[in-house]
Amino acid sequence: MEIEAKLHALGLALPEPMRVSGMKLPFAPVRVRGNRAFISGAGPLNADGTLAEPLGKVGADLTLEQGYAAARLTGLVILGSLKRELGDLDRVTAWLRVFGMVNVAPGFTQTPSVINGFSDLILELYGTERGTHARSAVGLAELPLRIPVEIEAEVEITG
Amino acid sequence: MEIEAKLHALGLALPEPMRVSGMKLPFAPVRVRGNRAFISGAGPLNADGTLAEPLGKVGADLTLEQGYAAARLTGLVILGSLKRELGDLDRVTAWLRVFGMVNVAPGFTQTPSVINGFSDLILELYGTERGTHARSAVGLAELPLRIPVEIEAEVEITG
Amino acid sequence: MEIEAKLHALGLALPEPMRVSGMKLPFAPVRVRGNRAFISGAGPLNADGTLAEPLGKVGADLTLEQGYAAARLTGLVILGSLKRELGDLDRVTAWLRVFGMVNVAPGFTQTPSVINGFSDLILELYGTERGTHARSAVGLAELPLRIPVEIEAEVEITG
Repeated sequence: MEIEAKLHALGLALPEPMRVSGMKLPFAPVRVRGNRAFISGAGPLNADGTLAEPLGKVGADLTLEQGYAAARLTGLVILGSLKRELGDLDRVTAWLRVFGMVNVAPGFTQTPSVINGFSDLILELYGTERGTHARSAVGLAELPLRIPVEIEAEVEITG
Repeated sequence: MEIEAKLHALGLALPEPMRVSGMKLPFAPVRVRGNRAFISGAGPLNADGTLAEPLGKVGADLTLEQGYAAARLTGLVILGSLKRELGDLDRVTAWLRVFGMVNVAPGFTQTPSVINGFSDLILELYGTERGTHARSAVGLAELPLRIPVEIEAEVEITG
Repeated sequence: MEIEAKLHALGLALPEPMRVSGMKLPFAPVRVRGNRAFISGAGPLNADGTLAEPLGKVGADLTLEQGYAAARLTGLVILGSLKRELGDLDRVTAWLRVFGMVNVAPGFTQTPSVINGFSDLILELYGTERGTHARSAVGLAELPLRIPVEIEAEVEITG
């Protein structure tokens, strides 16, 4: 429970599963197969699983700093999904691939600085060796439900 | 041939390979390595391999319902590619990752409801255990040839 | 050193690591785990690691041909990262997945012809068997630092 102890020490809590009414979502938040876990695209949520505001486009509805905070919150959402699927976050032995998508206003190109909110959290919790990941951080035309950030990932786990 | 029997029972046929003239496509529809199969981004096709209309942007040129139908058709295209590569669709032992891209008109954010056309088909054919997948469903600025939907995926296969 | 000999014969050199000031990039260009190497999204660079011009959107700031050249240059950037990580480019035993993102002007849909600049280079160097890959080539709303092309990939390597 090393990772959860760290979360606790940082004063961070994992949110409840996403609670969005009237929307069919026929897929798994995390798909595990052998030592591989594929993580579905996730966005920022409040502690109770409702969508975290502000919604909209970074560079218009959100500042860069608000985008960074949304990406960090998305990290907690993904850790919450991993915790529910794996039981213990220490079972993640390596972060592999992170695909960071930013809901951009036209002309907003500082997408890496937004997704840093996610990467910084993962490195803070897992350290350099386990936490290092390959990454893209790019600007999307639209994201579901007007979330400002969506992140999908792949991690290696132990049985 | 369980999956093909199901397709037959549902009255669904797998389309021919994509037939687009004057376009060099130096990549494989499916790349197999060991028990992993990577599926290239595919869009909706008619039975003869030509592009399925309507083309364009969901939320402007296509309704949500037409987008759903395009995503379901894209599922048949991908199954056609897998059938040609693997010989038998029963060799797919687990759907792992689905990345759904919707060609969006500005402001169209119901991308998950579009990509459900794909996920619903896969779950219908493969059932929950094999068919469940991690997924993202996002809005792209432009897609090749103005296709309304493009989906790439990774599946696990048996030798 | 077969691949490097081919690069030399073609008169191609691998650029230095990306040199961008004032930007925190908390991730690895290549993440290796077992026989898998995940390659972070990369864009075109000059030999000294600075951003290669022209920057901007294909279909407005760049022609299709300039986009193709940018994608080919991105291939050299990725090979440079793999060389630094693996020591020898011959250790890449199979290209698996290529995700090609084009910074598009509205209405530019010839994204596959742009990303061909990357695929053609890889096939030229690695041949059909090792070089064949699954691929998507799509249009993004914005890319970091206004780069015209960004490509991420996964390859199989030998120990």
